[in-house]
Amino acid sequence: MRLLEEKIEKDGKVLSEHVLKVDSFLNHQIDPSLMNELGKEFAKRFANEGITKIVTIESSGIAPAIMAGLYMKIPVVFARKRKSLTLNEDLLTSTVHSFTKKETNQISISNTYLNENDCVLIIDDFLANGQAALGLIDLVQQSGAKLAGIGIVIEKSFQDGAKKLKEMGIRVESLARIASLSNGEVQFIKERVEELV
Amino acid sequence: MRLLEEKIEKDGKVLSEHVLKVDSFLNHQIDPSLMNELGKEFAKRFANEGITKIVTIESSGIAPAIMAGLYMKIPVVFARKRKSLTLNEDLLTSTVHSFTKKETNQISISNTYLNENDCVLIIDDFLANGQAALGLIDLVQQSGAKLAGIGIVIEKSFQDGAKKLKEMGIRVESLARIASLSNGEVQFIKERVEELV
Repeated sequence: MRLLEEKIEKDGKVLSEHVLKVDSFLNHQIDPSLMNELGKEFAKRFANEGITKIVTIESSGIAPAIMAGLYMKIPVVFARKRKSLTLNEDLLTSTVHSFTKKETNQISISNTYLNENDCVLIIDDFLANGQAALGLIDLVQQSGAKLAGIGIVIEKSFQDGAKKLKEMGIRVESLARIASLSNGEVQFIKERVEELV
Repeated sequence: MRLLEEKIEKDGKVLSEHVLKVDSFLNHQIDPSLMNELGKEFAKRFANEGITKIVTIESSGIAPAIMAGLYMKIPVVFARKRKSLTLNEDLLTSTVHSFTKKETNQISISNTYLNENDCVLIIDDFLANGQAALGLIDLVQQSGAKLAGIGIVIEKSFQDGAKKLKEMGIRVESLARIASLSNGEVQFIKERVEELV
């Protein structure tokens, strides 16, 4: 998605060969107009799939997920990273290790909001090694719901998350795919439709 | 806001005299169309105030804040509840005690995204004893920004948060104001405009 790539080129900061900082529009400060366009694009790519629910994870997945939910006219459920005292029903739980934050979190969703009648689109801000996505997939599978696919804002294609998910037969739609962060520069994977132009 | 009150009456669950659970549309599962209407209403109430930025706190504040930001055409910054390793600049920090969750969190915002040229609208999901709002106000004051007011989705008017903030001279706009949760029922404060009808 060209609009997103331009935003990353303009405002993203390459901190190392593995870390792209997008705190100015996605992870800390959020650009609502950009989120609106991302939501519209997710809704377009996953139209006509019978999706009933979007699942994401707090906190940075919420903004793009809520905009996709607005256009798809379906609810969003966000997985929490630890138990809340007022979430006292049965919980679906899984474990996610974050290499960036160097911590392991239990993630959970109330089974009140996800069941075998649902068809789920998972949305998250980043896909790197796929740990968060695998945790969310685990929750969806535990609920008995069908998984329609995964929508990612920024895929670090030089890490193995996308490959792992595709090998599991899961459809992954990433709005920006980064081939490399070497030499302080963001290199995107050219999409086929652009190569043909 | 009648639409929100009806949603609370229909889908909110009174767990005790102090706890209203709205996990089905605000705190865990989120209704994007409702959030869109809440955002529109915040934008209307705080129009023509010269507001440059919305400040909220992860996670449940993000959805209403992002929708308000969309209509007001301004960025949203969400305070984090603990430090992230990739947020390595100077941080504005404060402390918030949650009586519901029985825990104290450090909250922080990068001073890159908030400064003395900003005019801020704080948005949050709940206002009870005002601890989260006071923490966010502290961050705004540390940054030197001007505070235009506070937009709240659900105010528990029987707790003293709103009173405290108003005594500080702060404008508080709550879209639903709950007078009581006694006897398992939600009683709203009648807005003056409705009383006159």
